[in-house]
Amino acid sequence: MRKHISGFSNPTVKELRALRDKKGRKRSRQFLVEGLRLLEDARASGYIPRQLVMAAENERARDAHPLIETLEHGVEQAGGEVITTTPDILTKITGKSNAQSVVGVFDEFDTSLDRLDRATASLWLVAQDLRDPGNLGTMLRTGDAVGAGGLILIDDCADPFSAEAVRASMGAVFTQGLAQARWEEFVPWLRGGAGQLVAASLRDAVPYRSAPYQAPCFILVGNESQGLPEAYEAECDLRVTMPMRGRADSLNAAVAGAVLAYEVLAGLDRSAGS
Amino acid sequence: MRKHISGFSNPTVKELRALRDKKGRKRSRQFLVEGLRLLEDARASGYIPRQLVMAAENERARDAHPLIETLEHGVEQAGGEVITTTPDILTKITGKSNAQSVVGVFDEFDTSLDRLDRATASLWLVAQDLRDPGNLGTMLRTGDAVGAGGLILIDDCADPFSAEAVRASMGAVFTQGLAQARWEEFVPWLRGGAGQLVAASLRDAVPYRSAPYQAPCFILVGNESQGLPEAYEAECDLRVTMPMRGRADSLNAAVAGAVLAYEVLAGLDRSAGS
Repeated sequence: MRKHISGFSNPTVKELRALRDKKGRKRSRQFLVEGLRLLEDARASGYIPRQLVMAAENERARDAHPLIETLEHGVEQAGGEVITTTPDILTKITGKSNAQSVVGVFDEFDTSLDRLDRATASLWLVAQDLRDPGNLGTMLRTGDAVGAGGLILIDDCADPFSAEAVRASMGAVFTQGLAQARWEEFVPWLRGGAGQLVAASLRDAVPYRSAPYQAPCFILVGNESQGLPEAYEAECDLRVTMPMRGRADSLNAAVAGAVLAYEVLAGLDRSAGS
Repeated sequence: MRKHISGFSNPTVKELRALRDKKGRKRSRQFLVEGLRLLEDARASGYIPRQLVMAAENERARDAHPLIETLEHGVEQAGGEVITTTPDILTKITGKSNAQSVVGVFDEFDTSLDRLDRATASLWLVAQDLRDPGNLGTMLRTGDAVGAGGLILIDDCADPFSAEAVRASMGAVFTQGLAQARWEEFVPWLRGGAGQLVAASLRDAVPYRSAPYQAPCFILVGNESQGLPEAYEAECDLRVTMPMRGRADSLNAAVAGAVLAYEVLAGLDRSAGS
């Protein structure tokens, strides 16, 4: 199905624009993905947007962008809608002055914990109260790179479907498993199967370079300013220290998770090889 | 010296507000640091603001914040200026609705390359065309954690004195050396002394876990979307690969730099011990 929108007051513009806010996303359970590159990543992972919105100029530029044409076909075949509009309206929808030329609307994923199959990966990332959507997207991207199964968001994390998180994930939001749960749900789920819970800590911890990591390993990262609550640290099977040689005693949360994830990856490979 | 500002049209308000923009910072060669925590970090590193600006309510709340009083004394002793104003004007200066209650104005540092003494550290971070101020600040913070000597910004990087970079650095902008240079200046400077230039690469590279790192080691990280130019990679003494097990073949720039920095730290410790 195709349609053209030329008026700012068109109700579809309002609906699309609402997806910029968490409230709007929660209501429609949909989210926006901006830019051809991310939309291509989505398609390569088997995700086709419900709606594809683009500035009308692109109709003429399509020969230069065969990927856009491929996307359009995909959307129409899947029963979705291709919407052409003006650059100004696209800017209004995305809220960016230099709006990407193409925007897709996707259904949010089911993020219940029991959708994750821990047997599918030897490494998982877990974030608690991670508030920065850029950090959240970066953790998804890191998870993709280390071959993690996915990211489990504990308690009050940023919305993984915000434009900023999706962008920072560089498409990994479509490749990584994603779950949202309270700590009180997560712990029984974790203990209902094999799994080693690991966190960086300053308390009662072993050096991170020689720690006995075991698959499936769940790497727990805490809130950007508070770190992990003491009770959460106490629940961990393994607490590790990382060198801190400066004035501060902490790293950016996404950075700490990544350094630890790469170390766990090497540790698991070592024990698999021995 | 003390003064109180009650009017939005006061020229000092305009001057302070201009520091939010790169153009304003370049003109006055000063930058803003927001929040008591960062100002305390600065003071602990020996940096006292030229001007300290706070909402007048803090005058009464000072007993609850002895650190603010200490800061005020420091500023006055150093010949600086303590400015009290209204919460609304402070909000106008910082551009944030929930403005931090205290803001300091500092002189920008001299960031010429010849101010760095490579003999002072075995590890240095180098970023090329790093555009995101959050990534830049995160690299400073990581540098502090691994005991790096500083961060060298090559070509067209984000402004290290932007509020976002300063905030993401968590005070490391005051503890890490900081230099800005074009590639054409950096290479002769680097080759004018001992130094191993290392970058993550997909070309002609050795595994990053077993690479022969040597101090002083300069870790070069490229632009967020383009990576490093081929000629820059070719200049490196060592190119290393990091595992990429997912769909994508890259990490967030600040994350890649941090994973590599922690590996170099361990590698240098190993060779120092053997």
